[in-house]
Amino acid sequence: MSHAPSQALDRRHRTIRTALADLGLDALVITSMPNVLYLTNFTGSSAIAVVTADRVVFLTDFRYLTTVQDMQAGAWACPELDLIRIEGSYDAALAGVLAALPVRRVGFEAAHLTVSRYDWFVRTLPHGELSGAELVGTEGIVERARAVKDDYEVATLREAAHRLSAVARDAVREVRAGRTEEEVAHAIDARLLAAGFSKTAFDTIVAGGPNSALPHAHPGKRRFSEGDLVVLDFGGVYDSYCVDLTRTVSVGRAGQRAREVYAAVLEAHDRAIAAVAPGVSRFDIDAAARAALGGHGLAEAFGHGTGHGLGVEVHEDPRITRRHPAVDARDEAVTVGMVFTIEPGAYLPTWGGVRIEDDVLVTANGVDVLTDAPTDLIEI
Amino acid sequence: MSHAPSQALDRRHRTIRTALADLGLDALVITSMPNVLYLTNFTGSSAIAVVTADRVVFLTDFRYLTTVQDMQAGAWACPELDLIRIEGSYDAALAGVLAALPVRRVGFEAAHLTVSRYDWFVRTLPHGELSGAELVGTEGIVERARAVKDDYEVATLREAAHRLSAVARDAVREVRAGRTEEEVAHAIDARLLAAGFSKTAFDTIVAGGPNSALPHAHPGKRRFSEGDLVVLDFGGVYDSYCVDLTRTVSVGRAGQRAREVYAAVLEAHDRAIAAVAPGVSRFDIDAAARAALGGHGLAEAFGHGTGHGLGVEVHEDPRITRRHPAVDARDEAVTVGMVFTIEPGAYLPTWGGVRIEDDVLVTANGVDVLTDAPTDLIEI
Repeated sequence: MSHAPSQALDRRHRTIRTALADLGLDALVITSMPNVLYLTNFTGSSAIAVVTADRVVFLTDFRYLTTVQDMQAGAWACPELDLIRIEGSYDAALAGVLAALPVRRVGFEAAHLTVSRYDWFVRTLPHGELSGAELVGTEGIVERARAVKDDYEVATLREAAHRLSAVARDAVREVRAGRTEEEVAHAIDARLLAAGFSKTAFDTIVAGGPNSALPHAHPGKRRFSEGDLVVLDFGGVYDSYCVDLTRTVSVGRAGQRAREVYAAVLEAHDRAIAAVAPGVSRFDIDAAARAALGGHGLAEAFGHGTGHGLGVEVHEDPRITRRHPAVDARDEAVTVGMVFTIEPGAYLPTWGGVRIEDDVLVTANGVDVLTDAPTDLIEI
Repeated sequence: MSHAPSQALDRRHRTIRTALADLGLDALVITSMPNVLYLTNFTGSSAIAVVTADRVVFLTDFRYLTTVQDMQAGAWACPELDLIRIEGSYDAALAGVLAALPVRRVGFEAAHLTVSRYDWFVRTLPHGELSGAELVGTEGIVERARAVKDDYEVATLREAAHRLSAVARDAVREVRAGRTEEEVAHAIDARLLAAGFSKTAFDTIVAGGPNSALPHAHPGKRRFSEGDLVVLDFGGVYDSYCVDLTRTVSVGRAGQRAREVYAAVLEAHDRAIAAVAPGVSRFDIDAAARAALGGHGLAEAFGHGTGHGLGVEVHEDPRITRRHPAVDARDEAVTVGMVFTIEPGAYLPTWGGVRIEDDVLVTANGVDVLTDAPTDLIEI
């Protein structure tokens, strides 16, 4: 398993420190595990990181201590890390760290800290200008940094997307009349592991016939039969980075309506990808897909957003969705280094559905499609 | 896939309503997805449930609408469910529901709602005795109910544990000199799926040689060799319920020290199970395991708790851990219907480790061990 080089972590820390300085904060307490991973290379499930102007105070328990110490001895070490071993409660240890550090205004991640934990800190920490740290809610500081991938991340996502495309080419061949959704889902999961993914990025979706009209169906015992459309949506985690791909195949010859719907979704997919370029609004990318489907009378059949960012989480910023009236314009344009899915679909209740999904990178020249499996309608 | 029968959901709702009445609350907003699943049979990833004195208002989006409607037509229907389709923001829809319901004091789950979302509700909802709902933080209302399993849950966990034991008997045979941790982990994952589990309950742990001293090691490229101890810790989700099992095997003949440590951990495992009975403190069950290891000079080598509850989450109440000074005595005794793991271990840095884990049910007579794979040291 590979991790981000120390210099990449250092650049990420500088981005966070600049954001802290802009907000007049002396430190940021990071409790979101994907954010902890992004800033420290820690892949365990329990830790808290406190980023100050010159240190990263890192709290974890005995289970992960050796792993962190080993990591710190190599090329993936987190710069300026002060490792603190937790005995007992994480939050009690964090309160002690905050009381001891020379920090006054301390940001926390309001979208991740629960009301219970926040209330406990407020009761526990000494308050006031002269007596201790003041907790300040923040929103999306690390998430905004994560939305723009660095060179290490782009290389990792590119490799992951390449491997996922190879899985996709084989996965479509797993579908045949008589097999169940569940059997094909298990076969895809096994192929993902064999292709070098450490795990699936989410529960694999295999939805045939009328189930293909449910964008988030669970694979069941239904057997495929001639004329079914089958949506295959799967992803993997490779060196901590998530990629995601969907193809729709026809069992036997596709009927006239299936061909029409497939062509409309593919047009939406292609038009949305063609719309991607630095400075373009994420809402306009969504609108390109939606306009294509609308041109075929399928506007109502496309109920979800066109895409989502990919990184250490499988759903992250940027969200390629319908324009929201109250959006902050600062977060609207996609920029070089963003990686996200393009995955329009059309779902006709009781009849079936089609979705086609690829992963794209915004480049200085426009767009680079990282996944490279064929998008033609495959008839099995 | 099977789900809880409607009568079981009805009993669960009554338990929650009794707790609400005791707290003087008119409703409880449930945002924790495992809690939503427990109360409604909903297995999707996005929904909010509001339990009032006589209804369950259920908010979900178009992706899950058909699934919920199908469920409501059968024997697994959630009683008194009012289905509300979300268009746009869940929290905005919830605010509208709360404003329209005849409720004043509304509990929320403080351990699950984030500070961001809470602040948004406080800004958005009308306030005051006459003008709208008052939000009241609650702790563990549904979690306490979940800790005691009903007949449907016991039957499901029993079947799941039986299947997991069959996987365990085969999984230990996957270990042999020359194979890597990762290869064995993938083989175990494939066996879990083939045995009827819908997915793994957590990332499978396969840790050989010195890695076995890390309780939460990631399976890596290290190849097993003669004399290695290998910890295999894996679990599966069966009809939404999680089970969890660990065995430690020796590659070739185990050395003298390995036999001693194994025997000490097995003694701790057996003594902890023997200590389980209704009314016994969960801390005393932990102490039984700890005392056995202490008798062999291994007290320091056992750094984690003895066990954790199993249910719709793989880690839930009751926690079988060291006594905590500030614990609420009400939550201390285990009771009939609780299901949890017993998993003592001993970890000697650089040398290796042993862990043995089974799943037990508290019965009127004492304890029933749900997993049934052999616990003798296996030499492969």
